[in-house]
Amino acid sequence: MKPNIVFILTDNLGYGELGCYGGGLVRGAPTPRADRLAEEGLRLTNFNVEAQCTPSRSAILTGRYAMRSGTLTVPIGNPAVGDPNVQGMVQWEVTLANLLSDAGYKTAHYGKWHLGSVDGRLPNDQGFDEWWGIPRTTDEVFWPGNPGFEESGVSPQYIMEGKKGEKSKKVAVYDLEQRPLLDAEITRRTIAFMKESVEAERPFYAYVPLTQVHLPTLPHPDFAGITKAGDFADSVVETDHRLGQILDAIDELGIADNTIVVFTSDNGPDPTWPWQGSSGPWAGYYFTHMEGSLRVPFIIRWPGKIPAGRVSNEIVHQMDTFTTFAAIAGVPIPTDRAIDGVDQSDFFFGKVEKSNRVSVLAFVADRLEAVKWKNWKLAFYDNTHDWFSTPVKLTLPKLYNLTTDPKEQYPEETLRNTWAMDGCLKAIREFFDSLKKYPPVPEGAADPYVPPST
Amino acid sequence: MKPNIVFILTDNLGYGELGCYGGGLVRGAPTPRADRLAEEGLRLTNFNVEAQCTPSRSAILTGRYAMRSGTLTVPIGNPAVGDPNVQGMVQWEVTLANLLSDAGYKTAHYGKWHLGSVDGRLPNDQGFDEWWGIPRTTDEVFWPGNPGFEESGVSPQYIMEGKKGEKSKKVAVYDLEQRPLLDAEITRRTIAFMKESVEAERPFYAYVPLTQVHLPTLPHPDFAGITKAGDFADSVVETDHRLGQILDAIDELGIADNTIVVFTSDNGPDPTWPWQGSSGPWAGYYFTHMEGSLRVPFIIRWPGKIPAGRVSNEIVHQMDTFTTFAAIAGVPIPTDRAIDGVDQSDFFFGKVEKSNRVSVLAFVADRLEAVKWKNWKLAFYDNTHDWFSTPVKLTLPKLYNLTTDPKEQYPEETLRNTWAMDGCLKAIREFFDSLKKYPPVPEGAADPYVPPST
Repeated sequence: MKPNIVFILTDNLGYGELGCYGGGLVRGAPTPRADRLAEEGLRLTNFNVEAQCTPSRSAILTGRYAMRSGTLTVPIGNPAVGDPNVQGMVQWEVTLANLLSDAGYKTAHYGKWHLGSVDGRLPNDQGFDEWWGIPRTTDEVFWPGNPGFEESGVSPQYIMEGKKGEKSKKVAVYDLEQRPLLDAEITRRTIAFMKESVEAERPFYAYVPLTQVHLPTLPHPDFAGITKAGDFADSVVETDHRLGQILDAIDELGIADNTIVVFTSDNGPDPTWPWQGSSGPWAGYYFTHMEGSLRVPFIIRWPGKIPAGRVSNEIVHQMDTFTTFAAIAGVPIPTDRAIDGVDQSDFFFGKVEKSNRVSVLAFVADRLEAVKWKNWKLAFYDNTHDWFSTPVKLTLPKLYNLTTDPKEQYPEETLRNTWAMDGCLKAIREFFDSLKKYPPVPEGAADPYVPPST
Repeated sequence: MKPNIVFILTDNLGYGELGCYGGGLVRGAPTPRADRLAEEGLRLTNFNVEAQCTPSRSAILTGRYAMRSGTLTVPIGNPAVGDPNVQGMVQWEVTLANLLSDAGYKTAHYGKWHLGSVDGRLPNDQGFDEWWGIPRTTDEVFWPGNPGFEESGVSPQYIMEGKKGEKSKKVAVYDLEQRPLLDAEITRRTIAFMKESVEAERPFYAYVPLTQVHLPTLPHPDFAGITKAGDFADSVVETDHRLGQILDAIDELGIADNTIVVFTSDNGPDPTWPWQGSSGPWAGYYFTHMEGSLRVPFIIRWPGKIPAGRVSNEIVHQMDTFTTFAAIAGVPIPTDRAIDGVDQSDFFFGKVEKSNRVSVLAFVADRLEAVKWKNWKLAFYDNTHDWFSTPVKLTLPKLYNLTTDPKEQYPEETLRNTWAMDGCLKAIREFFDSLKKYPPVPEGAADPYVPPST
């Protein structure tokens, strides 16, 4: 049988939080389950993501830079204000859930979606057989209690659920009371779905975007105060526990050897206090082009296929999981559009030492702020360490050696290494050439979307 | 037989370099031997040191804050200029080598001393049966080739050797030609000394202060270019290899079970480019009170005694190794002076979860810049991230929570946590009370030093 895929996506979990990434105890939050998962699988130290929640989720599900999909930034959440992003991702996009459904998988989404909060743009409209969770994001739990909100006419966010072919339903207002309970319920539903799939003798794809450790990091009552290091640490420990519950269920179902488990994060850590996360040895937070924004934890386990205990600093992008899992499931990816993800199965399986990718483009909203090529980064914007400040476009780009200068402080390498700029510029050229061939979906495009003929 | 002690001290190796501390591959320099040593022993993530080379080495050897020993800063190296620190540490200080010699150990120093470069203040004057290495530091290798040096009348630094009871001898000028070769020779001599000690059926104490990764990080020819990531990474790989050679020799001599091995660093990383090291998740470089200055790697292995694979974030100070090793060797420590190191053997052996220490004072030169107590730091000076700038004394101290705020950016915790200031202030009060009872040795004090009667 085709392997099951369990994709656990944490929210804003920075590179430096997990024990196996140098966090854990020093952050007041031991993560034994994630650490053990790393020992049983492959752990990457150069796994790259989009700079923010919405673009990251579209990249994971479509294998394409968000720049192509019109999902450039997080919608501010209120459909009433006319933010073009509120509509989310057009149905024309082909998600991994679409592909795996076609290949006979049962597919489910439990958790945070953030790719559209209107009918037609919810998970059950985008390839998932069923879903339960929130359409947007967690900071909206503050809304219902805030002065003026009730009289505003703005709708709060609802916890929702839906099935393919049916209209999604509201379950409850997502507020400060519900917030601590969400990941426990996401986990419970994930486990139930896995059990049903096993009983139905169907391969399954469980996409599990947890809501922790996004602000406010209010942990489940079972975890409140457990670390004595505050909410944030409590919620990291809860997240590790949720991972553990899913792993235990996989063992109990006897499907460990046929189940690929991914544990990763959507983007870098939040810079805002007191929810600021750790970028570990890197500088910068999410929504920047710094390594602290681009690199997140990524652990993948498939016993007997992916060698255990391997750590690699090869460049991989979250989009590659789309292409790799499609290849593993034996289902072709679309050929009528650009797919940026590359097949990393030989690299994951340890058949080759090298990743099938040498470069990554770092977009922030609609800006190409930087490009990585091998151990170099060419930045076109200044090093903003904080997404509250506007990035300043540089007259001349700056080149950083990420091995010797992990905090991106010494751009004087530029003139000594113009050869390295060539590699960076090639990646950009190829991308913009492909944009000409396949124009991007505009922000706010309506369904049905028809790409322009070129 | 009493256990052998091999204390390997790297130079300026920051918290973030070794693989097991989140460095390794991402720094272009895999460190498999150090990583394996950590799996075989105890690895600390809150091991604290003095802020600079000379004070750090005096603290290790005497179990006392350098503030007590008149070894406040690195001498600038040239005895002609009258720097009071040039004389180094008075003979009145009692080193671990003194204690272990008295207990029947063979003792040797191979490497960098930096506690005095005049006769009477060299390692063979301070308890070591023999030594080979450099009396001062490695940046002086630049001197001989520099314009004006030859005519200046200033003596270059020499590689030296000596035996207890004899005058030390010059071996060769320590210059850019010798620099890459030093650690190989230090390692060769360490291994020969261990072999001799085993043949003589004597327990031994090998104090091995390697010269890497201090600037200039010119690696041995066997390692030059090996990483393709530059001199610094090459020298980290060489250092890991030297550790490996010593560990292999311990295995070949069949003494692993009766040998305590320590692998650590004298202080935090160098901020100067291109020799800048990594503080990992912490901020700041050496000669500051930031965690990047205070926390360094520390791995200790004693098979069968120290549980394997343990990682702890408990506070330990390098001075504690003095007291702990004296206790393990069964030799009393001096009672006529203040000893700041505490016995950590029960903690190291895993008999207790907690360290025998809750606080650390952070001196920089003659300033008490900060104090750590549990997971708090109270800073009396501003957060200088660079030792070229003068620290500014704060009107009111700032309190940081090191668990939630590892980069020490959010001192607003102060007023919410005045209770935590009490713990910090108690540690300071106790220290200054003991200074009244035992006045510190003044900088530049002559031998024989006689403490004032109090």
